[in-house]
Amino acid sequence: MSKRLNITLIGAGSASFSLELIRDIIVAEGLAGSKMTLVDINEEKLRVAATLANRYRDEVKADLTFSASTDRKEGIEGADFVICAVKVGGYGPLEKERQIAEELGYYRGIGDRVSCYYGGIAAYHQLKFMMDLTRDMEAICPDAYLIQTANPVFEATNIVTRCTKIKAVGVCHGHVGYHEIASTLNLNLEHVGVLVAGFNHYVWLLRFMYKGEDAYPLIDQWIEKESEEYWSNGEYFEQMSPGAIGAYQLYGYFPIGDAVRCGTPWSYHSNFEAKKKWFGKNGGFDSEIGWSNYLNSKPKAFEKMQRLANDSDAVLMKELPLTASREQHIKIIDAIANDKETIFQLNIPNSGCIKGIPDDVLVEIPAVASGGGIRGCMIGNMPPRIMHNVLVPRWVRMENILEAYLTGDRRPLLLSLLDDPRTRSYEQARGLIDILFDQPWNEEAAKHYKW
Amino acid sequence: MSKRLNITLIGAGSASFSLELIRDIIVAEGLAGSKMTLVDINEEKLRVAATLANRYRDEVKADLTFSASTDRKEGIEGADFVICAVKVGGYGPLEKERQIAEELGYYRGIGDRVSCYYGGIAAYHQLKFMMDLTRDMEAICPDAYLIQTANPVFEATNIVTRCTKIKAVGVCHGHVGYHEIASTLNLNLEHVGVLVAGFNHYVWLLRFMYKGEDAYPLIDQWIEKESEEYWSNGEYFEQMSPGAIGAYQLYGYFPIGDAVRCGTPWSYHSNFEAKKKWFGKNGGFDSEIGWSNYLNSKPKAFEKMQRLANDSDAVLMKELPLTASREQHIKIIDAIANDKETIFQLNIPNSGCIKGIPDDVLVEIPAVASGGGIRGCMIGNMPPRIMHNVLVPRWVRMENILEAYLTGDRRPLLLSLLDDPRTRSYEQARGLIDILFDQPWNEEAAKHYKW
Repeated sequence: MSKRLNITLIGAGSASFSLELIRDIIVAEGLAGSKMTLVDINEEKLRVAATLANRYRDEVKADLTFSASTDRKEGIEGADFVICAVKVGGYGPLEKERQIAEELGYYRGIGDRVSCYYGGIAAYHQLKFMMDLTRDMEAICPDAYLIQTANPVFEATNIVTRCTKIKAVGVCHGHVGYHEIASTLNLNLEHVGVLVAGFNHYVWLLRFMYKGEDAYPLIDQWIEKESEEYWSNGEYFEQMSPGAIGAYQLYGYFPIGDAVRCGTPWSYHSNFEAKKKWFGKNGGFDSEIGWSNYLNSKPKAFEKMQRLANDSDAVLMKELPLTASREQHIKIIDAIANDKETIFQLNIPNSGCIKGIPDDVLVEIPAVASGGGIRGCMIGNMPPRIMHNVLVPRWVRMENILEAYLTGDRRPLLLSLLDDPRTRSYEQARGLIDILFDQPWNEEAAKHYKW
Repeated sequence: MSKRLNITLIGAGSASFSLELIRDIIVAEGLAGSKMTLVDINEEKLRVAATLANRYRDEVKADLTFSASTDRKEGIEGADFVICAVKVGGYGPLEKERQIAEELGYYRGIGDRVSCYYGGIAAYHQLKFMMDLTRDMEAICPDAYLIQTANPVFEATNIVTRCTKIKAVGVCHGHVGYHEIASTLNLNLEHVGVLVAGFNHYVWLLRFMYKGEDAYPLIDQWIEKESEEYWSNGEYFEQMSPGAIGAYQLYGYFPIGDAVRCGTPWSYHSNFEAKKKWFGKNGGFDSEIGWSNYLNSKPKAFEKMQRLANDSDAVLMKELPLTASREQHIKIIDAIANDKETIFQLNIPNSGCIKGIPDDVLVEIPAVASGGGIRGCMIGNMPPRIMHNVLVPRWVRMENILEAYLTGDRRPLLLSLLDDPRTRSYEQARGLIDILFDQPWNEEAAKHYKW
């Protein structure tokens, strides 16, 4: 028995991601017979994704149908689940905003700390999109679940859970960073047990067990005996970098995934020298080198997909083996639609799970999905140093970003920037905000946010 | 009918403050027949205070007895109320710590923002004293109320309400700053209604009424028409400074009292030029000029008291008229002991009064004192920009200070300092903490706090 679902993927033009989800649907089996609607405003990207989807389905003889649309409203008609993976306007404007900020003294730009790549101003486009999409969903498919994976997952999901009636859950894969700890320590993942909790991109390894025993002492041992050797050539998992170890020693628990960058102190990120010291010879994922490598990889990945789509002789399964990805999206849909009670790592309203964080703030915690919906696992108190010096400041930045968006007021954005360690004067901070809103791609945003 | 109470004043050597409280007791009438015990470790200061107390009592023929002791445990025996107004070690060490910090790039020292004068390191002596005092109270006078007015009121009262069984309330007079707004606007105080709430030194004018009408428009009018003229000679109430108006325009509500300094953005305080721009030609109360004027006034005030004590012909009532002070301490005692239901502005555990602040965090809000104890007034949500950019960051600093004290761990202090806008590197911050703990007056503290 399987549920024939309508699943809509918004932002399907990222063909490699779309194909991952499609393979997850095929592997899930319980979703055979479903229909997937691919939506993207970029016609060529959509064509590539749809072509590959249909050919892959034919190759593996899966019971799946696809349709493609550049019209969002048409795409969500009859949807049971909507997956959102949109990056409005691409990365170009964000990179230009970073350059402008750097000229005014803000190394690597302003935003969710310097170490993360979305700030309150650039967030406008994503937040606006989320509100437009979910207002459409309220009208067209009000009972559909939103599986929200577009960054910033924290703000863009939280605005939906606060301001709309849509059932929404935020999904990220950063929490699997502990796999890299296990692999570095030569532990068999099958016997590793973890508790990871916090906010999206700010999650912490609260429990780390191996074969039923506390495995943190194995990390301590590795730090003492093996880390120097491991770091010696300057290339390593960011998850096992001096920055991750430094944060562990400072906060008492390991930062996981993006938290290695986002949750570490400002002084780890203040210039390229600092970044190299803490995150390796390229300065880590979000340094000038790491981040431009990432951006450069995107068109190359698409060109590869395009070549595959245009080469009708290519055997797709060779390039894209039929195995489950590490993404949670489809598994969540399977758990909810087919009532398979499963534990995920999800971004949902706190509702008391982390003590001291308001109920309506999105937290990333273990949660059980089933036919009865999604229920977070109670966490209780976070370790105080993490709570007060990492989570609470990040919570405040989220509130400023949402308040600015919802009231159309620039002041909450200014207040976050006034708190930035690089801000030297009130005028500098206020001036930067005005310059950023003056950019052509922010014309609509500039009308929305006033002093 | 009046209650004959035993009231102990710890830190009675500040004779002018002691004489204010004594006059409040006499004016209260309901406290006639009470006994006040003056406690101070400085024998000369205690002698001056006790001499003046007895002579004043004789002059006005009040029914009050005094005793004096340099022994704290002896002083609290049989106490119904203990007032704490201690500054352990005086201001000397604090000033030297400031100089050290300034040499390392921290203008006006580190602490509760640059604009306030107690930080996590210097707080040790006060916190230690509070814990020692209240442990003694638990043993000697477990039912006595503690009226806690020693700075930092926030941390030093909160540690008592969290960690001991003593009934404690924090008391400050900063909230009367709205008197200066009324006086500047030529409003009759009798018809002014206010709601002031936040944390100690971080309180905000949430409601400002005159003769039953919203009086905020009167402030707006004054800003537009009279402020330029008012500011023109560079000398004015800090409460009506450009800094206060700037904060009002940024946060949407007026900061009151110390909040004018403590609650304003970092950029108002980053150097003497900034301080002069926002707080007047002396740079405000905590600038190098304002603060040294304050420190210089202290010995002069004492010398005056000393002269009065030594001149047995002096008529004290001429110097110290018999009127109630603006302090709340004695009025609170009167309200509790004689069941006179009265509204005060008090620092008490939040217990849900300010939404989003944990129950066990000390808030400064209107509260009703009576024979039934103290009950806070429900505030609900604070304005979001104040909540997220002023109160929450201050809450976090309090938590770091208390966690460092309670666990003997330097890391929470380091984490606060890493978040200081003047910190350039991890090493600079960590180095400053070590240098401060290396000072001779911090020998005991250095043993208490470890890495």
